[in-house]
Amino acid sequence: MEYRKIKDEDKDGDVIGDDIESLHGKAHSVPLNNVASLGGSSSDRSKWKRKSIVTLSLTILTSSQAILIVWSKRAGKYEYSVTTANFMVEALKCALSLAALGRIWRNEGVTEDNRLSTTFDEVSVYPIPAALYLVKNLLQYYIFAYVDAPGYQILKNLNIISTGVLYRIILKKKLSEIQWAAFILLCAGCTTAQLNPSSDHVLQTPIQGWMMAIIMALLSGFAGVYTEAIIKKRPSRNINVQNFWLYVFGMAFNAVAILIQDFDAVMNKGFFHGYSLITTLMILNHALSGIAVSMVMKYADNIVKVYSTSVAMLLTAVVSVFLFGFHLSLAFFLGSTVVSVSIYLHSIGKLQR
Amino acid sequence: MEYRKIKDEDKDGDVIGDDIESLHGKAHSVPLNNVASLGGSSSDRSKWKRKSIVTLSLTILTSSQAILIVWSKRAGKYEYSVTTANFMVEALKCALSLAALGRIWRNEGVTEDNRLSTTFDEVSVYPIPAALYLVKNLLQYYIFAYVDAPGYQILKNLNIISTGVLYRIILKKKLSEIQWAAFILLCAGCTTAQLNPSSDHVLQTPIQGWMMAIIMALLSGFAGVYTEAIIKKRPSRNINVQNFWLYVFGMAFNAVAILIQDFDAVMNKGFFHGYSLITTLMILNHALSGIAVSMVMKYADNIVKVYSTSVAMLLTAVVSVFLFGFHLSLAFFLGSTVVSVSIYLHSIGKLQR
Repeated sequence: MEYRKIKDEDKDGDVIGDDIESLHGKAHSVPLNNVASLGGSSSDRSKWKRKSIVTLSLTILTSSQAILIVWSKRAGKYEYSVTTANFMVEALKCALSLAALGRIWRNEGVTEDNRLSTTFDEVSVYPIPAALYLVKNLLQYYIFAYVDAPGYQILKNLNIISTGVLYRIILKKKLSEIQWAAFILLCAGCTTAQLNPSSDHVLQTPIQGWMMAIIMALLSGFAGVYTEAIIKKRPSRNINVQNFWLYVFGMAFNAVAILIQDFDAVMNKGFFHGYSLITTLMILNHALSGIAVSMVMKYADNIVKVYSTSVAMLLTAVVSVFLFGFHLSLAFFLGSTVVSVSIYLHSIGKLQR
Repeated sequence: MEYRKIKDEDKDGDVIGDDIESLHGKAHSVPLNNVASLGGSSSDRSKWKRKSIVTLSLTILTSSQAILIVWSKRAGKYEYSVTTANFMVEALKCALSLAALGRIWRNEGVTEDNRLSTTFDEVSVYPIPAALYLVKNLLQYYIFAYVDAPGYQILKNLNIISTGVLYRIILKKKLSEIQWAAFILLCAGCTTAQLNPSSDHVLQTPIQGWMMAIIMALLSGFAGVYTEAIIKKRPSRNINVQNFWLYVFGMAFNAVAILIQDFDAVMNKGFFHGYSLITTLMILNHALSGIAVSMVMKYADNIVKVYSTSVAMLLTAVVSVFLFGFHLSLAFFLGSTVVSVSIYLHSIGKLQR
């Protein structure tokens, strides 16, 4: 379970804030402007292609992330410090963003949109999502007083609903009735696919556990929607610059987490104590999927991200059958059917608007 | 499990046949004629009201049927002969139809539409559904060589899909894409709601078991759709006359079943051996819900019937919490959510056509 933290932080954790009120108008008008300025069907197609590539990348990376977790669990217990691994993920994402920027600068020169230097107005919002995740990670320790680990996995599907609700409220983007129905089905389908004989324990969760699970789902959903708002606020700004600033604050907050939680361990055993090949692969994978999340926020939206990571969950189970000889349950097939219908309805719902 | 037979036979068992080809045009045009001749919004409302009442009756009767089964299981093993109970259900339905007709004759006199005498052309189709059910009941004995009883309960949800497919093919009524999606969800949701820790056994069903389950689902679906075709073929014909002829052949086929399966037991122990208060209540309930099925076929359709009996299944579980102290599983809540969304989508899908 320990590793879930790094996973959480990564999957939905690269977020930054702004004055929400000021974002409303801009975040809303941006996609329309974009479409208008790009116009024609060939640029529509290239946008669609870019959106598909980042979504597919996120799905594959998230799926392989979960497979690495299973693999590492089979290899034995984690002996490394989770906070240092989180820090390394942020540092690697930062380095990759800088490398991408370096290439862009060589090819296109430094412009208004891809320069690293920024204004206080632009940068001031970037620490907020990282701060939200720090709060969420601190809460995560307390929720285990009320819920066991498999129960927490079930309750985490509340993130799907919270993301949809906050996407509607904060970004003021409307989903059709059919898309709302599809979103409820996505949540029910994902939960069904994860059912196991001990899942019913979650129904005995005390009211405090439910409250905390809902708060954590709201924090996670808020951070995700907020990131989208920040990234889309400046659509012409290069995504690598936006990522760089996101990840710098990610590093800073994770450094604080190391100091709070693992200072003694790091001092006594060293920063990289317990790191193995698989730890390195996991850090690399988390860094890449973190960047994929940002890309999806830039070129698609939180709804696409939720669908993408849900499909990844199903994909992981199917791949695990071949890799680890897992057995798929009837609940998995039923959940997958519901998720598939949900995806279909989401696309139908969009066309009918 | 034994009692399931009577339940099956009853719930979808009051069916009769005709030359399918000749039914197509008529079954299709009938509802339109009906609407045209009745016209105005007040008769639309009264039709809607009648449809709602029969649907609600079917839901409540089916739900209490299952509750009676649970109650009788608690009371001990069944000692009565299932075939004689089936015969009594048909006989009671016959008697109730005649009683209703008697009242109608007194009030309205004997007319072309409510007279009992009939032509060979009209009556020739009525034994077919009863014959289909006899085949299905015989197959039921063989399927248990491949599937256990709870597995069979799961596989019976294939009836939902087969009814939808045959409804489309035989009655040539179209469902919208959204309604098809809703139908798949109904099947997945009902199965999810019935999941229990041993449900995964069903995945080990050999190919012969799957084939037989599919054939039985097709037989059941075909019998249901065929009944609707027969009843709707003559829309002005009084439903009680149609029911009378349906049930007469139901009695005949059940008499054959008594001779084949329980002749010795009936001869040695007597026809009503082992009958108790609860057996009587179950026979009464099955008779009433059988009549409700016919009414739904007349005034609504097979799709409404499937939704009605699915909701009844969920209702039974909820009522059992209060009556028997049952615990609802997480799978039940997830399945109910999916079924609820399915009902919503079905109604949305209808409006958008």
